[in-house]
Order: sequence, then C-alpha cells, then structure tokens
Amino acid sequence: MRRRIRELGVSIGRLDTGERNSIGDVPSVLVGHETLIHGEGELSPGKGPVRTGVTVILPHSENVYKEKVRAGVHVQNGAGELTGALQIMEWGILETPIALTSTLNVGLVHDAIVEFMLSENQDIGNEGEVVLPVVGECDDSYLNDVRGRHVRREHVFEAIKNVQTNVSEGSVGAGTGMSALGFKAGIGTSSRRTPSSSGGYTVGVLVSANFDGDLCVDGVPVGRELRRWEGGPRNGRSIVTVIATDAPLTSSQLTRVAARVPLALGRLGSTSANSSGDTSIAFSTAERIDTQLKPTIPVAQGVSLRMLDEFFEATIEATEEAVLNSIFMSDTMVGRDNHVSPGLPVDAALEIMRRHGRTAGRPD
Amino acid sequence: MRRRIRELGVSIGRLDTGERNSIGDVPSVLVGHETLIHGEGELSPGKGPVRTGVTVILPHSENVYKEKVRAGVHVQNGAGELTGALQIMEWGILETPIALTSTLNVGLVHDAIVEFMLSENQDIGNEGEVVLPVVGECDDSYLNDVRGRHVRREHVFEAIKNVQTNVSEGSVGAGTGMSALGFKAGIGTSSRRTPSSSGGYTVGVLVSANFDGDLCVDGVPVGRELRRWEGGPRNGRSIVTVIATDAPLTSSQLTRVAARVPLALGRLGSTSANSSGDTSIAFSTAERIDTQLKPTIPVAQGVSLRMLDEFFEATIEATEEAVLNSIFMSDTMVGRDNHVSPGLPVDAALEIMRRHGRTAGRPD
Amino acid sequence: MRRRIRELGVSIGRLDTGERNSIGDVPSVLVGHETLIHGEGELSPGKGPVRTGVTVILPHSENVYKEKVRAGVHVQNGAGELTGALQIMEWGILETPIALTSTLNVGLVHDAIVEFMLSENQDIGNEGEVVLPVVGECDDSYLNDVRGRHVRREHVFEAIKNVQTNVSEGSVGAGTGMSALGFKAGIGTSSRRTPSSSGGYTVGVLVSANFDGDLCVDGVPVGRELRRWEGGPRNGRSIVTVIATDAPLTSSQLTRVAARVPLALGRLGSTSANSSGDTSIAFSTAERIDTQLKPTIPVAQGVSLRMLDEFFEATIEATEEAVLNSIFMSDTMVGRDNHVSPGLPVDAALEIMRRHGRTAGRPD
Amino acid sequence: MRRRIRELGVSIGRLDTGERNSIGDVPSVLVGHETLIHGEGELSPGKGPVRTGVTVILPHSENVYKEKVRAGVHVQNGAGELTGALQIMEWGILETPIALTSTLNVGLVHDAIVEFMLSENQDIGNEGEVVLPVVGECDDSYLNDVRGRHVRREHVFEAIKNVQTNVSEGSVGAGTGMSALGFKAGIGTSSRRTPSSSGGYTVGVLVSANFDGDLCVDGVPVGRELRRWEGGPRNGRSIVTVIATDAPLTSSQLTRVAARVPLALGRLGSTSANSSGDTSIAFSTAERIDTQLKPTIPVAQGVSLRMLDEFFEATIEATEEAVLNSIFMSDTMVGRDNHVSPGLPVDAALEIMRRHGRTAGRPD
Repeated sequence: MRRRIRELGVSIGRLDTGERNSIGDVPSVLVGHETLIHGEGELSPGKGPVRTGVTVILPHSENVYKEKVRAGVHVQNGAGELTGALQIMEWGILETPIALTSTLNVGLVHDAIVEFMLSENQDIGNEGEVVLPVVGECDDSYLNDVRGRHVRREHVFEAIKNVQTNVSEGSVGAGTGMSALGFKAGIGTSSRRTPSSSGGYTVGVLVSANFDGDLCVDGVPVGRELRRWEGGPRNGRSIVTVIATDAPLTSSQLTRVAARVPLALGRLGSTSANSSGDTSIAFSTAERIDTQLKPTIPVAQGVSLRMLDEFFEATIEATEEAVLNSIFMSDTMVGRDNHVSPGLPVDAALEIMRRHGRTAGRPD
Repeated sequence: MRRRIRELGVSIGRLDTGERNSIGDVPSVLVGHETLIHGEGELSPGKGPVRTGVTVILPHSENVYKEKVRAGVHVQNGAGELTGALQIMEWGILETPIALTSTLNVGLVHDAIVEFMLSENQDIGNEGEVVLPVVGECDDSYLNDVRGRHVRREHVFEAIKNVQTNVSEGSVGAGTGMSALGFKAGIGTSSRRTPSSSGGYTVGVLVSANFDGDLCVDGVPVGRELRRWEGGPRNGRSIVTVIATDAPLTSSQLTRVAARVPLALGRLGSTSANSSGDTSIAFSTAERIDTQLKPTIPVAQGVSLRMLDEFFEATIEATEEAVLNSIFMSDTMVGRDNHVSPGLPVDAALEIMRRHGRTAGRPD
Repeated sequence: MRRRIRELGVSIGRLDTGERNSIGDVPSVLVGHETLIHGEGELSPGKGPVRTGVTVILPHSENVYKEKVRAGVHVQNGAGELTGALQIMEWGILETPIALTSTLNVGLVHDAIVEFMLSENQDIGNEGEVVLPVVGECDDSYLNDVRGRHVRREHVFEAIKNVQTNVSEGSVGAGTGMSALGFKAGIGTSSRRTPSSSGGYTVGVLVSANFDGDLCVDGVPVGRELRRWEGGPRNGRSIVTVIATDAPLTSSQLTRVAARVPLALGRLGSTSANSSGDTSIAFSTAERIDTQLKPTIPVAQGVSLRMLDEFFEATIEATEEAVLNSIFMSDTMVGRDNHVSPGLPVDAALEIMRRHGRTAGRPD
Repeated sequence: MRRRIRELGVSIGRLDTGERNSIGDVPSVLVGHETLIHGEGELSPGKGPVRTGVTVILPHSENVYKEKVRAGVHVQNGAGELTGALQIMEWGILETPIALTSTLNVGLVHDAIVEFMLSENQDIGNEGEVVLPVVGECDDSYLNDVRGRHVRREHVFEAIKNVQTNVSEGSVGAGTGMSALGFKAGIGTSSRRTPSSSGGYTVGVLVSANFDGDLCVDGVPVGRELRRWEGGPRNGRSIVTVIATDAPLTSSQLTRVAARVPLALGRLGSTSANSSGDTSIAFSTAERIDTQLKPTIPVAQGVSLRMLDEFFEATIEATEEAVLNSIFMSDTMVGRDNHVSPGLPVDAALEIMRRHGRTAGRPD
C-alpha cells in the first residue's frame, strides 16, 4: 500500500498544506481521470498493450466557456505540446477544461474537448465565437502502444464525468504510462496555504511527471544512491504542471507564478533536457469572466508585488511535493514489449533519507 | 474569370517575383488542397452547409520527419492555434507537414497528420521519438457549419496526395470559407527573388486570410471607397502566413523573417484585432537535418545580418501580394444561413486604383 | 514655415484626434526637450559638430517613483537599447521618466536620470529600493558627433525643467539629429480619441523617428516618386515609440497596444531593418500606484477585450501620423562633415498626393 | 583563510571540473575586478561608506567589437537591468565586454565601456555603426553608499586592465557589497567539462550573487539549520550569471543554455523573488565574427540537440557551485550604517553537512 511522501514523514518546504494537500483544496477545482490499462507483452500497434489515459482539470463545475477564469502560461522547454497556450499568453484567459494525455493522442482529445464544449454551448460557431481547447501531453511510449491513440472521445467524456475534489495519484489518467527521474511516476498533487499576512490563499498543483534526471528527495540524492535498473525509461520527456489558486492574481501574475516551476524541477534533479516539454499553466478561480457580454473585463484585484513572493514559494514547494507524490504513489508497471518502469523502493529510499540526517520514517 | 492582381497591372513592391509568383517557386515546396463545398441554406450543425477544407504545405516531397528543415515562428496576436509552435520556437526545426484548416477541425486534422506520419515512420513511438504536427487554423464559421468539423482524415490524406508545385488560390482548401478585409478571401500566394547580391534566393509566401480591416491595395483605400455590404463577415479573425525560402537561413533568422508579416498586415489595412490569430511560420529548404542519427546538426550557413534586409523586404512584399491574390481570386460565396461573403468587385476596385493615380488596368 | 501634415489637408485614419493632436492631449502627460546644435564642418570627435539632444516624457508632474503608472513594452526589432525594458516586462510598471537620446549617450543620460530620481527620493538606496530608469535611443551619427556624447547631466535636467503640454516637433530634443525614410525627421506626435462607445479615452503617441525605407504618405509612395538625394542617411536605424493613454488598461493590454506599432511602420514604408531598434513603450495615467506602501496593487479596471480594438486602431493611426509629423516638421539639416539630411520638399510631396487622388492641398 | 567549497570536500554534481574550476578555464576568457572599499559607519550619501566595485568579463583579449562572438540571454525574473540584452536577443551576438556593477552605477559604467570601445575603434560612430554595451547589476545598498555611484570611468578602465585567467572570488569587484541566501556573497565561479562523447568542451560560469532564500548546500538545508542573524540583508535582490563555452553553440543553443540557470537557483534555495533581477548571458568563444566585412556570418557548427543535455547539466552544476563559492569565499563585511553581512560560518556549515550524511570534511 503506497503512501504519499508527507505521510512517510517527509515534509517539503515550510508553508502549511491545504486540507487535502491537493489541487482539490482550491475551492471549485475538480479533477477527473480515465485510466486505460489492458493487454500485455509484445507491442502490436493499434492493439496494445495499452498503458495510457486522460486527465481533465476544471477550474469550476459550471460552464467554463461562459464563466472564464484568468490564466498564464510558462514554457521552460518547448519540446512538447500545450494547445491553447498562444491564446492564454495573449488574452490571459482560460475558457476550456485542461486535458492532459499521451503525446500522439493530442488530436483526438482536442477534438473530444471541442465536442464537449459544443454540446454545452450551442452558440459556439453559430452566433458566438469559436473555441481553442487546452491539451497538454507527455510521451508514454516506453510502456504504452502510443501509436494506437487509445484515448477516444468516450474516455474524455468519462474523465469529465469523473471529476471530483479528491484527486487520485500515481498511474492514473494521463499519468498511467509515465515515468520520472528513473522510476514509475504519473499524476501527483500537493497544495500550500499562503500566510494569513498574504491573504491566507491556497495554491494547488497537479503534475503529469515524465521527465528524466537523478531523483532528489528534499535535497537528498536518493536516485544516485539507489542502483538504477537496466533498460529504464528513455531520457528526457516532459512534465506538465497545472497550478490553481483562489487568490485574485492578474494574468501577468499567474504567468510569473507559472515561471517558478523550473526552480522546483531543479530541486528534483531535472536538467530540463532538450527533448523535454516542460510547460506550466496557472489559473485563478477568484473571479469568473464573461468576455462576451460585459462591457469591461471585471477587475482583477491582484496581490501586491511583495505578496507575490509567498505565491512563488508556495508554487515551488507544492510542485516539488506533487512530483514526489507522483513517484511515491506509483507501483512498478510492466508495459509493451515487457518494458518495466520500476516503482520507487520506498523502504530503501527512506533508509537513504535517514542516513542523510532526515528524521523521516514510516510512522507505525 | 478572376485574375491575380499582378495580371491586372498592379505590382506590389520593387523586387522581382519568382517564375510562378508562388510559394511553389521555392524548389521542392509543395502545396495540396482539399475543398469541401456542399449544402445550402439553413445551418444544420453536423450536416451543413459545408464551406471548408484543408491545405497542406510540404517543405519537400521526401519524408519530412526523416529529413527535417529549419524553421521559426512568430506570433503577432495569439488569439489562434498553431500547434507545434512551442517546439519550433525551442528547436528551430520543422519535422511535419504544415496543415491549415477550420478552427474547430484542428483536433481531427492533427490526428490525421499523426496517422500519416506514423504510416510513413514505423519507428515513431516505437524505437524513435514521438511527433507533434503543425496545424494552423482560421475561423470559417460565417459561411461554414464549423460545428460539424467536416474535415476528416480522408480529406487530409487527399490534400497530401494532391500536393503540387502549382498552387490554387481563393476559395480552396483551408481558404474555402474565409473572408478578409470585407470580401471573400482564402488562400493566396506570391514570391520574390532577392537580388543576386543577396544570393538570388527565392522567398515564397502562402496565406490563409481571414482578418478584418479596411482593404488597402498598394496603399489605395479601396475598401473605404467601395460601399461595404450589409451583414458582412464578423470582425477580427485570423491570418496564418507560411513563408518558405531556399536560402540557408538559421532558425533565428527565420524567426526574424516571420516577424516581418505584421508590417505587411499594416499595409493591407489590418489592426491585428484582439480576436485575430495572426501567426506566421517560416522555413528553409536549404538543408535537411536528421537529428536522430548525426552527431551534430548540419551547419546552417546563414546569411549576413545585412543581407537579411532583403529577405525582410521580400517577405513583406510577397505577404501583401499573397493576401491581395487571395481576395482577387475569390468569387462571392453564399454559405450557411445564406450568409454572403461578397467577391471583390474587381472593375470597381481597378477604377478606384486609376483614380488614385495607379496606372493599373486590366490588360486586353 | 513648416506645418503638420493634418494642417496640409492630409488626415490619417478615421478616428478623431485630441485637441492638440499630440501626446500632450493625454491629461497629465508632459514632454520636455533640450536641443544641442553647434559647430559646422569637419567632424572633430569630442568637439562637434553637435546635432543632438534629449527628450523627456513624464506620465505626470508628480514624483513618478512614488506614484508609478502601469506600462508595457514591445520589441519589434531589438537592435537598439531601451533600458528598464526588462523590469517593465516583468512588473508592468513605469516608475521613472522616459528619456530619449543619442545612442552613445545612453549611459550619461541614464546616470543623470538616476541623479534626478535620487534628488527627488531620499529613500532610494537608503531605506527604499533602487531604481532603473527608462532610456531609449536612436543613432544620430550621420549628422552628429556621436562619439562626443554631448548630452550631459545639465541638459537632462534642463529637459526635465522644460516639460510642458505643448510638444515641439521635428529637429528638437532627441530628434535633433535623426532622419527617417530618406528625409530629415526627429520628434513627431499625434493623438486619437476612442469612440464614446469605447469610453472616449485619449491615446497619444510620440516618436523619435530614425528608420529607413521608402516614404509612404497615407499609402501614397511619395518617396518612390521623389528623386532621392545622393549620400543620404545610412540605412536602418531605429524608431522609439511612446504611447500614453488615460484609459485604465492593464499592463498586458498596454503591452498589446505597444505591439501594434509595427503595423503603422509597415504603412509608412519600413521593413524593420536588421540594424533597426524598433521598440515601443505604452503607459496608462489612469491610476497611480504606490507599490511600497499599499497591501495590494490598486485595481486596473481594464477595458473589455472587444474595446481593445479601438485602442489598437488609435495607436496605429497616431503612430503613422506622428512619424509623418516628424518629417513634415523638419527642415533640411547640415551636420558633421557637411552631411546633409534633406527636409521633405512639401510642395512636391503634396503634388504627388494630388496626383494620387488625394484631395489634400495646402489650405490658403 | 577561506577555501572554495570543493577544497572542503563538497563536490557538486557528477561532471569533471576544468583545471581551475573557473570561467577562466574556457580558453581566451578573461575576468578583471576593481574593488572599492573605504569608509565606515554612518551613511553619508556621496561620501560613503563605500563597498562596491566593477567586474569585467572579456570573451577574448582582442578587440571584441571587431571579433564578435555568439551569445544568448535568458531572463528568469526581470526586476533588474542588463543593458544590451535586447540586441543579443535579436542578433545572437556579443560585441562588447560584459560589465557587472552596482545598480545605480549602471549609467556611469555604461558610459565608461562606451568610452573604452570608442578608444579601441575609431570607426564607431564615424564610418561604422554605433555600439550598445552589456552592463548587468545587483543592488549593494545594504552595505554600500549606492547613491554615491562610486564606480567611475577610471575604475572601469582599471578593471579592464586587471583582466586575467585567474578569477578572484568573494567580496571583489561587482561582488564587493553583495549578500546571498542570508550570508555575505559576491563573485563566484566554477567550470565543467562535457564528456568526450560530447566533444570534451568546457563550460565556465561566473556569478554575481545577491539573492535571497534559505541556503541549501548540495541539497542540505544548511541555512535552515544555522541560526540566522538579526537585521540581515533585505530580501530579494538579484543574480547575474555569465556562462562561457568553447563549444560551437549557435545563439539559439546559447539562449537555451542560459535558460538552465533557474534550475540551479532552485537547488540553492532561491524562489526567484519578485524584486530579484535574475538574468543570465551565455557566449561561445568558438568562432569570431566580423559582421561588418564578411558577406556571410561564419558558420556556427552547433552541437547536436542530444549533446545539448550535457551542456545543460554542466551549466546547472557550475552555476550551483559558483554561487556556493561566492558564499564560502566571502568574509563577514561591515558596511554603511554598520550594517553587517555575516560570512558563512564554515565549520558549522560543514558539521551540518556531516550530520546530513555528507562525507565532506575540511582536509587537514
């Protein structure tokens, strides 16, 4: 039975977490997964084995196209896809769900999100405007029959139906076939509260982690000390980071928050490799914007430039912990062609932590 | 019988055109369209009327994934989608066809290009890397049943089969349902030769034009002087500009070339409206790059910084003329709900040109 | 006696101008010049001839460091200096005067602005933060002893003392030694009112114009039709554009407004040459921000995304007219080594306008 | 007697260092400091106490304006100045020395570098082009009479005269008045060799470190475990990072290398605070470019995209170690108003390292 890293006695950073230590701590934010696992053995493109899925993040449970939210995007290394990024960079507004999936499935998931948006909004493409969904991806081809593009519209709709406040971690949804820092990884989440002097807001992070490097846990070189298996995942894929907050940040401030993700990646052992798509998107639920009807964009109160520092800190801490959760919560997975992505050996990792003066220990 | 603007006696700029005055003048560049026109009258989402299509641009007739080319991207206003843009910004390399289509069809066309790439490259997602196609879009919802996403995989494959050096213009391919500057528009193309002192290279431009403003023709306010029709296209969509050259520009230089498109848009009467997706992509056919096998990226000779000015000039002139061709070559189209996008009244336009001291005249 | 282009019967665009048709129409904005002209004949570096100066733009007459304003920056071609740009891009805030000067004088003018800021703010560098001034430049070396860096601190202080609502144009201040589009140019200004449906705000533009190309006047190729003189200015320098508005635009919106300048440059005949520093900065006087004391940044109301289009249009029109004013208001100047920058022959230019169907005429 | 961190038994990362473990390991790169320390006690603006200086980095000992090098710039947080950055972003070329200094001294140092460039290049501003120097800054106002701008032209010239291969660290040059991560800091340097499979190139880093956070040493939370002194440096200033390599990287690749600095900052404990100017500049000495004379820019061979990963790793490791060297090599300094910036208590720090399982120990 895998446990989250904080339950194992390792705390990242100094800020308090939210109640669930999850992006679901940000009021109204919902996450849904659809996980596809079937088949074993030799790769038969189009058939399997299948180790993939889709994850959907909603800023709130209402119609996002009608009640848009502010957002910002940052690209640390652009060897990946994040559709809709150009529009968010321009407008500072998110008007669709955020979907994460397997690299070659971006097109089909994009189309499924369009279909979902159309079903909810009869005016799109009729009297209204059109819509450009946000779809991020990581490459799960080490374990998955990526060529098969097994995520179909019904799976996307299912993930949307599945949304809830409680967020599953590890090999679920878009994270199903992911590996990071030499171990099986996938979806992870964490949250922080800014001090009451900074408004007592919540910052929640969800990652789909698939990047390479030598795993560091709270600064301890755990990966270097563990023997790494033969034939591990290929180097340098990607990480998509989604940051949510209930603080009334402007789109510029959200962009700057998203730009703190690289500092967490460095702490984890990443070099943001050449072939890694390291993208991040931050949004605020503080107000909902209807750009169609209202004469002015409702006001973003913003937070003071000085208060921003605690949002930066919260983002870095929560991103680091979210990635660690994605690893600690993932069991060994055998995928196509019997490729193995090993689950982190938790006891050995904790022993290394202890040897490095961390008091961390699995509580009885 | 519509004619290109240069055949009507209007020459844009001072540089010579290539032989065909087309992006097809750049050796090895190929363009294919698939045009979908059927149905009339009232909009029945999913059924029609259909006024859409897809256009594919290939840097060369070989396997683009195996023989990549250098590229750069510029975003003047990001209210649009250009998938693959982040990777080109990062790597400076184009490794897929460029597909242009209707906004809500981006997902399906993306998936079809993936399918095409997979069929040509058995190693993708197996031993090789994955692939992120380049798909640009404009909104044809004024004329087309955009909600129906009528461009399907077979249409994309057909467009790829249709590629040739001779480029059709006007209401074809991705341009089928487009309007620009108050008139029916769509696909247009033009080319320029740099002076022999700058190497005698060719710069070719293809646009899918769908943006608003008051039409200027070589500086003459033709749009302002023509009575504009009732119920014209809604304001402020997009223009995607594709620039090809056989000069050995580096990716940075290609990015800078792509950044000259806004100067042409200004000349045409655009204000790069808030809801316009004004993106451009430039690539060079001068060398082909296999990033998988070779120890170093083959050398980009580049051109001198001073020579670049003639590439900038060529790009601006060819972009202006390509947009004008897209308008001059488009007949009036009646689309969904009997929306009318009027073809430019050419004789009236030329008469205005004459009144403004332009000697332009339809040669007998 | 030179006159502004609108007084000569040529109107650019469709929007109304402000009362003075000047950046001074934006309430509280002030502009001061200090012009340095002395010496003739052969260049003696360090002595002269001197054809240079400095121009200072203040968002308001109070202490700008204490009462900051929102701002955004756009770089069309970065072959120039605009100090302070990185901070504005990050913070969206302007906290110093904007100074424009000769390229090699950036350092001394920068230091003089620092000295001015220090004298006004005893807390800077003591209990407060430090300060990074905004200094833009164009290269006046064709006419001026640029190596002499003749603009000294006392000239900067004088320019600050000289600020007023009425803005001189042509060969004054930073514009003293400038040429553009083949003719003597320098400082120019213009303004527009957005329609009352967009709030009836004012957009004012001031340029220091020094870039190359073939002069177009409202679309008419005046430069091409006038014989260009021998030994004209060297190609491809720069243009710095300053945009002010009293509309409560956010910093992101101001950045987007600044990004419309290239569309005006295209209309004027620029290709944004390789060695041109084409930078623009936009600021809003709508509110004043004290980031030191207040717990939150006061709210930027913003304008609706749809209203933005009229700010874009206003910016393009006013930039085009400001550049034309900088040329129409400049007399022929003889500078170092008897280099001549010819004033535009206005009558000949107007005759060309007439031949091109423009009713423009010098009113009696 | 302070020692570099590696001499104390702490090795950062896995790659080998160069011979000197310094930016001076990159052949031809030279660094010069001029250090200004005088006065004590109460701040008397304009008089002192003075704790400041200037550091100059030369890509080679020849005329840099005549023999330019390729370069790239990255801005993690733009609350700082790096003059010349816009031109490097546009052209990918460095043509002046890089000077680092105190924030309010940017103008005077800029002017001094211009004067130096003019004295070496009679053609600048005459028949040649003009020049835009690269000057970076950090705020030393906690210790220094920053308002006095004590770095004058003679000090800049002296720093240029002082250039050598051996690089002093700690409270020297631009680093004189700096503090980082709660301790006295300043200039630090380090280098790495890429594996012979990646060409056996050298990557050298020099930092001027002045940023806040909780000091981590190779992942160990040393800062958190040491009692922090009362009245320490104010939060959130800046770090300028200069990266040199002899590998023939293109300007795009150099830009991407510079974009790895944030990953090192995260490892050190930075949050890239709101008021921090975190800028980096990377250049290659592999070839020298004369853009004035040659018809084409000489070729940048580039390295393969896959090889880049080792340059990224080298940059992150060397940046982390350079910052640590800047701290380990700095003694406690008392500055203006008796402000104290405490030198890191090395023995206590090493004891903490040991408690965290690091075998590091001061060798006898």
